[in-house]
Amino acid sequence: MPIRLTSQVYGKSSVRLTKVTRHADRHELIELNVDVALEGDFTESYTVGDNRRVVATDTMKNTVYGLAADHPLTDPESFALALASHFVDRNEHVSAATITTAMTPWRRIVTAGRPHRHSFTGGSGELRTCRARRTRSTVELTAGLTGLPLLKTTDSAFRGFPRDEYTTLPEVDDRIFATLLDAEWSYGPSAVGDAQYDWNATHDRIRDAMIGVFVEHKSLAVQQTLYAMGEAAMAVCNEVPKIALAMPNQHRIPVNLGPLGKQNKNEIFVTTSEPFGRITAVLERE
Amino acid sequence: MPIRLTSQVYGKSSVRLTKVTRHADRHELIELNVDVALEGDFTESYTVGDNRRVVATDTMKNTVYGLAADHPLTDPESFALALASHFVDRNEHVSAATITTAMTPWRRIVTAGRPHRHSFTGGSGELRTCRARRTRSTVELTAGLTGLPLLKTTDSAFRGFPRDEYTTLPEVDDRIFATLLDAEWSYGPSAVGDAQYDWNATHDRIRDAMIGVFVEHKSLAVQQTLYAMGEAAMAVCNEVPKIALAMPNQHRIPVNLGPLGKQNKNEIFVTTSEPFGRITAVLERE
Amino acid sequence: MPIRLTSQVYGKSSVRLTKVTRHADRHELIELNVDVALEGDFTESYTVGDNRRVVATDTMKNTVYGLAADHPLTDPESFALALASHFVDRNEHVSAATITTAMTPWRRIVTAGRPHRHSFTGGSGELRTCRARRTRSTVELTAGLTGLPLLKTTDSAFRGFPRDEYTTLPEVDDRIFATLLDAEWSYGPSAVGDAQYDWNATHDRIRDAMIGVFVEHKSLAVQQTLYAMGEAAMAVCNEVPKIALAMPNQHRIPVNLGPLGKQNKNEIFVTTSEPFGRITAVLERE
Amino acid sequence: MPIRLTSQVYGKSSVRLTKVTRHADRHELIELNVDVALEGDFTESYTVGDNRRVVATDTMKNTVYGLAADHPLTDPESFALALASHFVDRNEHVSAATITTAMTPWRRIVTAGRPHRHSFTGGSGELRTCRARRTRSTVELTAGLTGLPLLKTTDSAFRGFPRDEYTTLPEVDDRIFATLLDAEWSYGPSAVGDAQYDWNATHDRIRDAMIGVFVEHKSLAVQQTLYAMGEAAMAVCNEVPKIALAMPNQHRIPVNLGPLGKQNKNEIFVTTSEPFGRITAVLERE
Repeated sequence: MPIRLTSQVYGKSSVRLTKVTRHADRHELIELNVDVALEGDFTESYTVGDNRRVVATDTMKNTVYGLAADHPLTDPESFALALASHFVDRNEHVSAATITTAMTPWRRIVTAGRPHRHSFTGGSGELRTCRARRTRSTVELTAGLTGLPLLKTTDSAFRGFPRDEYTTLPEVDDRIFATLLDAEWSYGPSAVGDAQYDWNATHDRIRDAMIGVFVEHKSLAVQQTLYAMGEAAMAVCNEVPKIALAMPNQHRIPVNLGPLGKQNKNEIFVTTSEPFGRITAVLERE
Repeated sequence: MPIRLTSQVYGKSSVRLTKVTRHADRHELIELNVDVALEGDFTESYTVGDNRRVVATDTMKNTVYGLAADHPLTDPESFALALASHFVDRNEHVSAATITTAMTPWRRIVTAGRPHRHSFTGGSGELRTCRARRTRSTVELTAGLTGLPLLKTTDSAFRGFPRDEYTTLPEVDDRIFATLLDAEWSYGPSAVGDAQYDWNATHDRIRDAMIGVFVEHKSLAVQQTLYAMGEAAMAVCNEVPKIALAMPNQHRIPVNLGPLGKQNKNEIFVTTSEPFGRITAVLERE
Repeated sequence: MPIRLTSQVYGKSSVRLTKVTRHADRHELIELNVDVALEGDFTESYTVGDNRRVVATDTMKNTVYGLAADHPLTDPESFALALASHFVDRNEHVSAATITTAMTPWRRIVTAGRPHRHSFTGGSGELRTCRARRTRSTVELTAGLTGLPLLKTTDSAFRGFPRDEYTTLPEVDDRIFATLLDAEWSYGPSAVGDAQYDWNATHDRIRDAMIGVFVEHKSLAVQQTLYAMGEAAMAVCNEVPKIALAMPNQHRIPVNLGPLGKQNKNEIFVTTSEPFGRITAVLERE
Repeated sequence: MPIRLTSQVYGKSSVRLTKVTRHADRHELIELNVDVALEGDFTESYTVGDNRRVVATDTMKNTVYGLAADHPLTDPESFALALASHFVDRNEHVSAATITTAMTPWRRIVTAGRPHRHSFTGGSGELRTCRARRTRSTVELTAGLTGLPLLKTTDSAFRGFPRDEYTTLPEVDDRIFATLLDAEWSYGPSAVGDAQYDWNATHDRIRDAMIGVFVEHKSLAVQQTLYAMGEAAMAVCNEVPKIALAMPNQHRIPVNLGPLGKQNKNEIFVTTSEPFGRITAVLERE
């Protein structure tokens, strides 16, 4: 049977790493979930079980921990780039290595008005993400965040949409806007090629820009707010040629209190998880 | 067959409520998951399907939304008490009503150094909890929190434990201490009977006291830290006769880098979810 | 401050065990999640961090694996009893040991009409549960199941319930009945004291009895079906003096197709996860 | 700022549908999670909040339920195709509609040796999946499954892989092979264009072929077993030009019982969730 193996990718997923860096005045903590995936010619393993070219996924795991010991790990981006390079440099038959990281948002505890030396609490469910893909001739780096909870109780409307026989949604001037922001942006060569690039500062700047728009925007559609947030993100970072955003519309449905003899003054809502609207866009510099 | 119905409890779970209160200068937001459970004599429904005494669980749901419209909902405790009373007062055959709430931790967004009027972001996975149980003659109220992530990178040891042939754990002087705190305390009658009691301030005070101990404690055992946290909680609130705490020990396991020819200077750890130690205690005033 | 430690319980949770038993003609597989919890006098650990009496939770984990090597592990009940005894027998200061197990439902794959020698697939999310508690003078054993999905498309009604101003639910003659059964029963001394007791056969008999009632019952209330299921369970096993059942009512809500110009002939439903009714009872022999 | 909107996709996700079809002798049940996503020119909504071309996601939800009433819904594939066509046909400015479905695996309960008329239990966590994408000129259809649990206790080895200083994994001749199969295949035009095509029979045939290989394969690498499963799938269905498979390697790690003075005869394992190997391939007909 003439069948071809048109993609062969394998790796180790969910390598869970905590690194503590012990400075005299404070400890730094980073917690990452790391996925390693290799592309290349591993055909003999797939077709006849010959593993001579198969870097064991257990070896990938060890490599993550081993390189973490040598790397400062002050940000996930430079670590992902280093890991991707390691696998391509070591293995001639590997055509590409992709490192994906998700960073758990530990925040330093503040007690008595001062950041504590070595104690942390969790952030929201938001994760800071990163993906570095190194081929034999190229490097791509994207970074972003997933699951940032945002909610505003007003300044959101939805009107003027088309109606057909399946349309029952009333037009609304003032609704709750609740979402979990996912954003992923690319870094251009001026950033990726800069060994001193400050990935943390850029991440915070882009994140703040998006939040800043969310809170102030007079939203006529989730689409419009999302687009404005993407524009703002690109405006604060010239090294970003492209950003993708996705926002669920986590509906808060006004309860009909009429049958109970009460009025709902846009105050009482059912919190829902599903179904949810899902709005996405990709913005690129021309 | 001589079989007796020795417990009959039913209700509605996961009634999801969002309430917005629109003040001139700011909007307040509360999001609760509410469970209603009734005890009483519903025997005919169980044995012959006669539902004359069965308050429909759909009616319970409507009641949650209806009472939420009338109640200020500045805290979950007073709302849970009001709901419990409603069901007992309305239904003579109901012997007890238990209202359990879990509050989603929305936090007001700060932009340009100022709390925003109507925009919020999520807290950590921590939930603020509450349970009110009203019988025909008594009221019990417990409150607490679940899933507060706490981690310290030092000041935690574990030594001197007994060894048998199943013991392989080395003694350790300096380990990571990571946990998700669950705490639940009772309020005595001086609080429950006080219509003006400030549930929010007390919750924050108890929570802060426990965090304050966690960050500063030189821990010789998770047990010891947990006990000290419980003591601190009771010290800041005389109205609390009892507190129960539970803390998983979410192990961070040092990676053996020896086979890789590297040394692990107490820096590189595997983050694990299971198995986990689980340490609990109940403290009561004598 | 006069504070007393009125409960001190600790242990290891989520010890994940797979055991394979290799018979000539077939392999047997059991996968358990095991929780160990000890009660006793560990006061010095809580109050001053003296761990001389604290069996390390890591030792508990090792013990689970060590005893699993020696035990036939053809069922979880006898293993839980053995583990509980081990900890009480070994440690004089331990007043009680509780072992809780949850068994993953692997089912043997049937190929070409025959059960395969060594291949398995997952069951539903249902877990078989067990809890053994051994004190210095008593043994208690409960067993059960959680999360058994059951759904019937007819033979379920709900009528005749009281109405007040919060009641909007219509009476219904023919609704979908969907649930996730939780059941937990006690075994009396005649079973617990019988070293040859067939825990697997009893578990299957009780489970089948409950399913048999669910499918055939003309339900006038979830309460009524639940009670009949509990009666049936006790009828097939004299060694069970008590059973607790809990069933969520996972509502399937008929879609109002009227506004779309269509009729819903009791065919089209919204599947919902929350809110859900939650019906429970405990049945005991007199 | 010269920024371009290079992708604009939005829709409704997690529309949860249960349909019951009441035949005289038996009821049929289908439960789907449906996602609708539209591509097209919605630029004015993104840039200025003009929603004239924005089909409301609530309308999409209603359409799912409305079309479900008219459609026989004996399989998800034909329903997904019908839904995709509906949105493209109705809306000239929509360039593509993608319908993604996940089907909950209800299985008819067998009592007394006979399939029950109207009662069902859950399958494993496995979901049957489908995605139909309709543009103005093309139709694509893929189908598959996710999360099928498969485990074999023997006939799996892993040897001959390269070693470097990060390699600590021993070679192994006989290990547990546990996975959760994800597979997604395309249907060619001969199937998609056939209004009578039997999607259910094909799905079962492909699924059975993959399971049949899994259980019998003497595996020298997860890669090899995965490839053989893909080949078998394509061998039983000529209408499938392409299949993608992904299998986590859910490691069962032999416990070192040596320190406990016991031998582990390849019987006692730690069940792990992470990290996991992740092996994938795409196979295509030449």
